[in-house]
Amino acid sequence: MTENFRADFQGKNVLVTGGMGFIGSNLAARLLELGSTITLVDTLHPKYGGSPFNVEPIKKQVKIIIADMGDEKRIAPIIPHQDYIFNLAGQVSHTDSMSDPQHDLAINAASHLAIVEMCRKLNPQVKIIYGGTRQVYGIPQYLPVDEKHPVAPIDYNGVSKMAGEWYHLIAHRTYGLRAASLRMTNVYGPRMRVRDARKTFIGAWFRLLLEGRELQVFGNGRQLRDLNYIDDVVTALLLVAAHPSSDGKIYNLGGDEHTSLLDLARLMVEINGSGSYRLTPFPAARKRIDIGDYYGDYTKIHRETGWNPQIKLREGLRRTLDYYIEHRKHYW
Amino acid sequence: MTENFRADFQGKNVLVTGGMGFIGSNLAARLLELGSTITLVDTLHPKYGGSPFNVEPIKKQVKIIIADMGDEKRIAPIIPHQDYIFNLAGQVSHTDSMSDPQHDLAINAASHLAIVEMCRKLNPQVKIIYGGTRQVYGIPQYLPVDEKHPVAPIDYNGVSKMAGEWYHLIAHRTYGLRAASLRMTNVYGPRMRVRDARKTFIGAWFRLLLEGRELQVFGNGRQLRDLNYIDDVVTALLLVAAHPSSDGKIYNLGGDEHTSLLDLARLMVEINGSGSYRLTPFPAARKRIDIGDYYGDYTKIHRETGWNPQIKLREGLRRTLDYYIEHRKHYW
Repeated sequence: MTENFRADFQGKNVLVTGGMGFIGSNLAARLLELGSTITLVDTLHPKYGGSPFNVEPIKKQVKIIIADMGDEKRIAPIIPHQDYIFNLAGQVSHTDSMSDPQHDLAINAASHLAIVEMCRKLNPQVKIIYGGTRQVYGIPQYLPVDEKHPVAPIDYNGVSKMAGEWYHLIAHRTYGLRAASLRMTNVYGPRMRVRDARKTFIGAWFRLLLEGRELQVFGNGRQLRDLNYIDDVVTALLLVAAHPSSDGKIYNLGGDEHTSLLDLARLMVEINGSGSYRLTPFPAARKRIDIGDYYGDYTKIHRETGWNPQIKLREGLRRTLDYYIEHRKHYW
Repeated sequence: MTENFRADFQGKNVLVTGGMGFIGSNLAARLLELGSTITLVDTLHPKYGGSPFNVEPIKKQVKIIIADMGDEKRIAPIIPHQDYIFNLAGQVSHTDSMSDPQHDLAINAASHLAIVEMCRKLNPQVKIIYGGTRQVYGIPQYLPVDEKHPVAPIDYNGVSKMAGEWYHLIAHRTYGLRAASLRMTNVYGPRMRVRDARKTFIGAWFRLLLEGRELQVFGNGRQLRDLNYIDDVVTALLLVAAHPSSDGKIYNLGGDEHTSLLDLARLMVEINGSGSYRLTPFPAARKRIDIGDYYGDYTKIHRETGWNPQIKLREGLRRTLDYYIEHRKHYW
């Protein structure tokens, strides 16, 4: 798809908030290949996913601003020049949202509201893609979960992510701002945070596996998930950004392989060639936010943009393991 | 119902945030009759509904704190003593939410989150009723709107109100906090803000009518609404607070008389004995947030608590007009 994208992104100014994080840094690398002029904004908050090493290979070819995306003094001056903005900044840890909910609200809602307001005032033609999440659906009422599924977050983090998304969509409705949201499911791949389970348990699993430590699978391990490899998610972000009719819309992502957590642990051990896992009862705090099975219906984005996940789970896990074997010292 | 309530509220400590506003001050007056020990918190922000005159008759019998409900230094010390908290503080103006959305978010989401956190830490047994709104439903997908209707706010104010409500419900889910939400429809009656249309057009209509000025009815005037008289809403708040099984639940209010805006204008002129109204095209900013017809399904609160609206529209409008004829100088 790269050739198609070239016309859409070559020579274009693109701002990526959360640009040193997992998804942002992978997106930036792809945009660079496509010939975009790139600005990355990141707080480099120690609890978040941002890491200087994520952008080490491209750091001389992009502009980097260490700031909160809602910091008007720092961010407003660069808004008028952008053709695209990917709003991927945010705090996605359930645990952190419960221990410091005001910070969670400030980052995920107030900062996104601030940049949305800057855009509609300073650059109403810019195309904005918001990095949404399946978390807003809470516990699935049916499967696969499509975009019509009611929203009902079950933790503070889900509330702030929901508010951040709605600000984008209401600015579209009210001011014609060209914003769309991509609600992602479990994304994994190189440059994800593996230091702890803050972003997702999968990140922590890669680290445990490479350290020869046991993976803990909560409950009976039969909870189904659909994982998306990072390259597929980057493609989806670009497709939605380039799609002229995506303004004001929400798109779910989803995967073709619905894998139980137990099977995922088995597969990771198998691919790694060694390792172990163990079923363990849910800690109370985790049980409260357990959503049972989840997999998303990606019919809408497929129908409108042709997106399909390309990378099989086995292949994606292999690539991810290889990345962390090579770059372990930068992520531990 | 007052006799039944006495056992639930007599001698109880009750905190009302937004306590000098329309609903808060009427609730406080009723609680005083029931023998509660009452603390009112209000910012008295000039754009909001709080007014010292609203509590003039009871001011010597209640404790009043002028502060933001989220101000931990001022509010935390009184939290442990409360049996009930009615969280009615907030900013409900669409227009103000669009011109100063960060303030809207701070008041409606961050301050409510702050008091919810204070409660779960300092007084996890307190019963909290959140003052919710039909606004979270956005444009009705079906009528009457029940609690299962998807939420989809169409303005910034709807987002912040939604977040404020969800913080209460998630604290119930996570910490067992005894919180419930009452989603109100158009509430009218004595002590409502009539200075402008910030709270609702109905308030402004009372004022225009008594000034002999023309009421403006937007569009074709056929949009249906269900209005609740304030005394009925106060009863609903008390019923939900006293109902042992309301923890973690949402209840819609609604009215039996579905009235078009045009008929409402006619009725107000008729009851007043003079006045005029005129159909006028929607201003663009108002058209964007027009939700068409709305009326709520109050089956759930009726089934669980026995609540029914008691005051007919004609009677409620009469009482309201009488109030503003008598107290006009304090509200203009």
